[in-house]
Amino acid sequence: MTAIADLRYASAMLQWDQETYMPPNGAARRGQQIATLDEQAHAQFTSDETKRLLETLLTDNSLSASQQKNVELCWYDFNKAHKLSAAFVGKLSLCINKSFHAWVAAKNADDFALFEKDLQALIELKQEEAQLKGYVAHPYNALLNDYERGSTVAQLDQLFGGLEPKLKALLQTVQIQQQPSTQFLQQHFPKAAQMSWGNALVEALHYDTQSGRQDISEHPFTINFNAKDVRITTRIDEADFSNMTWSCIHELGHALYEQGLPDEEYGLPLGEAASLSMHESQSRLWENCVGRSLEFWQHYLPMLRQHFPEQFKQVEPLDFYRAINIVQPSLIRTEADELTYHFHVMIRYELEKELISGSLKAKDLPAAWNAAYQQKLGIAVPNHRKGCLQDVHWSHGSFGYFPTYSLGSMYAAQIFQAASKAIGDLPQKIAAGQTQPLLDWLRLNIHRHGRQYGSEELCILATGQPLNPDSFIAYLTDKLTKVYN
Amino acid sequence: MTAIADLRYASAMLQWDQETYMPPNGAARRGQQIATLDEQAHAQFTSDETKRLLETLLTDNSLSASQQKNVELCWYDFNKAHKLSAAFVGKLSLCINKSFHAWVAAKNADDFALFEKDLQALIELKQEEAQLKGYVAHPYNALLNDYERGSTVAQLDQLFGGLEPKLKALLQTVQIQQQPSTQFLQQHFPKAAQMSWGNALVEALHYDTQSGRQDISEHPFTINFNAKDVRITTRIDEADFSNMTWSCIHELGHALYEQGLPDEEYGLPLGEAASLSMHESQSRLWENCVGRSLEFWQHYLPMLRQHFPEQFKQVEPLDFYRAINIVQPSLIRTEADELTYHFHVMIRYELEKELISGSLKAKDLPAAWNAAYQQKLGIAVPNHRKGCLQDVHWSHGSFGYFPTYSLGSMYAAQIFQAASKAIGDLPQKIAAGQTQPLLDWLRLNIHRHGRQYGSEELCILATGQPLNPDSFIAYLTDKLTKVYN
Repeated sequence: MTAIADLRYASAMLQWDQETYMPPNGAARRGQQIATLDEQAHAQFTSDETKRLLETLLTDNSLSASQQKNVELCWYDFNKAHKLSAAFVGKLSLCINKSFHAWVAAKNADDFALFEKDLQALIELKQEEAQLKGYVAHPYNALLNDYERGSTVAQLDQLFGGLEPKLKALLQTVQIQQQPSTQFLQQHFPKAAQMSWGNALVEALHYDTQSGRQDISEHPFTINFNAKDVRITTRIDEADFSNMTWSCIHELGHALYEQGLPDEEYGLPLGEAASLSMHESQSRLWENCVGRSLEFWQHYLPMLRQHFPEQFKQVEPLDFYRAINIVQPSLIRTEADELTYHFHVMIRYELEKELISGSLKAKDLPAAWNAAYQQKLGIAVPNHRKGCLQDVHWSHGSFGYFPTYSLGSMYAAQIFQAASKAIGDLPQKIAAGQTQPLLDWLRLNIHRHGRQYGSEELCILATGQPLNPDSFIAYLTDKLTKVYN
Repeated sequence: MTAIADLRYASAMLQWDQETYMPPNGAARRGQQIATLDEQAHAQFTSDETKRLLETLLTDNSLSASQQKNVELCWYDFNKAHKLSAAFVGKLSLCINKSFHAWVAAKNADDFALFEKDLQALIELKQEEAQLKGYVAHPYNALLNDYERGSTVAQLDQLFGGLEPKLKALLQTVQIQQQPSTQFLQQHFPKAAQMSWGNALVEALHYDTQSGRQDISEHPFTINFNAKDVRITTRIDEADFSNMTWSCIHELGHALYEQGLPDEEYGLPLGEAASLSMHESQSRLWENCVGRSLEFWQHYLPMLRQHFPEQFKQVEPLDFYRAINIVQPSLIRTEADELTYHFHVMIRYELEKELISGSLKAKDLPAAWNAAYQQKLGIAVPNHRKGCLQDVHWSHGSFGYFPTYSLGSMYAAQIFQAASKAIGDLPQKIAAGQTQPLLDWLRLNIHRHGRQYGSEELCILATGQPLNPDSFIAYLTDKLTKVYN
């Protein structure tokens, strides 16, 4: 398993380089290099040799409990992966690489046509993947299951169906209030100062820079090559201070999870995160529950002023807190507030269902996208760059990923509530810049377990109950009451 | 062959990252990841499947001449590689990675003991490699052959034996002359200004930055992932302007060769450089024949002054030229002048012969090193950092590499002479900043051939005669006459 992990992490390294430092002309061969690594890792993992090894280990009574768990999860992964041939995986990897570059070009040129053909080809490969993997009820279920084991259309329809009216009611309430001023966020923030602020921020929040680094990329992401080398990226817009700041804290949350996984389980399931939604719970907990709290800025506003003395000279923590939590329907998912964010997810979820079932074609995506934004958020999409080309996910073939963001927010609220209860004076600690107790609690209750437990099981262990969206609604209502008086 | 090349270049990517951006704690797993890729690439290349494929192709009359050449060279490589098991290659790769990190630590701490054990282990593996590969007369021949096909101790003894008295005589002549002033080189050169100067310089010298990039590393190197992604690194010492400048031009020379190789031969011998000495001829031609010429600085001194206006305010091209070509026995190979440089190589060559034959142990290396510097260059080595720990090569297991540096210098002088003859007014062109005709000539006569010809054959094709050290001696005598009036 170690050698297979080495191949997978080498592929990850090539991808990290591709999105950070690779010179433009390096792209042509890079896709093929990544595809070879992916194909060989897949072939080795799904080989008869792996099968025989796992079959032997499944009946080996001398294994420890954690070894048994590793074998059991490997067996699950093997049976899932085994349904795809190495050739299919290589083909998919190549198609993804091509789509990714097409998406970058299309987004830069604001020209959906540059992406359409590759996207349609990728969708068809994902449909084929769903067929190969098999599913009940809806082909999209086969893909959802990759990001969140056991997740289904039926379950998500119910979840989002319950959530939507509550969010709509909250939205209507805040929309008739007086809006806090956000003027001080709309200034010029030089690139170098933003980078140094972003680095100072993640270091203050316990990012181990001996085991990671932060770089610039088109789309922020976290990537790991083992628990001692977990890297994050960010993007900088000099006209936008918020985008970079909370993207940094978001990726930091992912990175803290990866840096907290047991290094000795390298290449094995127990060395991996529980699930994508649990991963998102960690990024969103730091980004929102911590990084958009009043207490956090009571402590960090002075540090922020050191980096931007002019821009934040007159700003008080409460005004800052209100400004960064303003709720307003907007175009860009990653810049959305904590409430309307979930409409962005629901839009993508509905579109993905249709794209994968085949009832929607890539060519009709822009129109469907724009209609959905009008219908759910009441806003007109001015161009594709700020519309259906804004996210990298589809160019990566990540259909089924978006719902984990909403699940993550809900897990985050519930986990943060449990941590607050356990720690007692967490808000006061955060206001004093003491976030180590929170990290310690997360390390103990979430990180160290790796994939030992699924999301639901881990949620019960850490919080005492299964996922309950009411925690999130309560958290949001409480925050918006403060923000809007 | 493409998939095998993909694995090799992925390994190169992991090594590039390790020496440029990797966070310190990433090192622990990185060595193992590289070893896995090296082992798998080796196993696939030396497999029965490869053998059968090559055997079929060797008798296939429908192949084009260049396809036949590719097959013939692959067959040569196969038979060489086949002598080493994949397990041995993996073990060697791991040992190299460990040694490299030990060397970095030992050099930083100026403590040879931190490196000694890993070095000895690596030497023993290289001795084993020589046995596995087989050799006539001297085990070192087996390793020399890896860097320069057909190169032997007998041949190098003769070459260096002929060269040494001529260099000694030249050295004695210049040592009794009045030395040009080098005072203006000993100033403070801020890091950022050096980096921007170095980038401007390699761009002016035709480095394609769309197909490459320059970064910082402990030891400068050139590495390629295909002909469209060829990267160079440099190092910056604020007290030393020379080190960085000529290291940049040196690596540029390597990079121009790689960027000039036929991209369509990716993963095949004809897509590779002819040999290491031919590679060195390209780096040294640009570094020395071009980059240390009077004409070059007649053009580039004004540009240099833009980056360091204070430091070079009063300096004239001729004074600059004299200062940068001063001959003086010194401690550091990479900072040595063009004459004494070869004593550094000869010292290492003699030591390597003994280390590989087993008559010298790693623990006795520092003493032997210091004695050799006293004997050949008449200087005392003050510490191991400036002594036997200065070069990365041995920690990389590259025994047999150093002689290619001297061969490279000699090829460089001869090739530059031929290019000058063909171009006619090359000095005037260089003085006018026109180096494109030289690059065009090199592309046509050297680069585009890949591994079609061996060093000697290529030398005859490009210059009309086999390697003749007299060209180098004539070049050096001519230069030193100008430098020392």
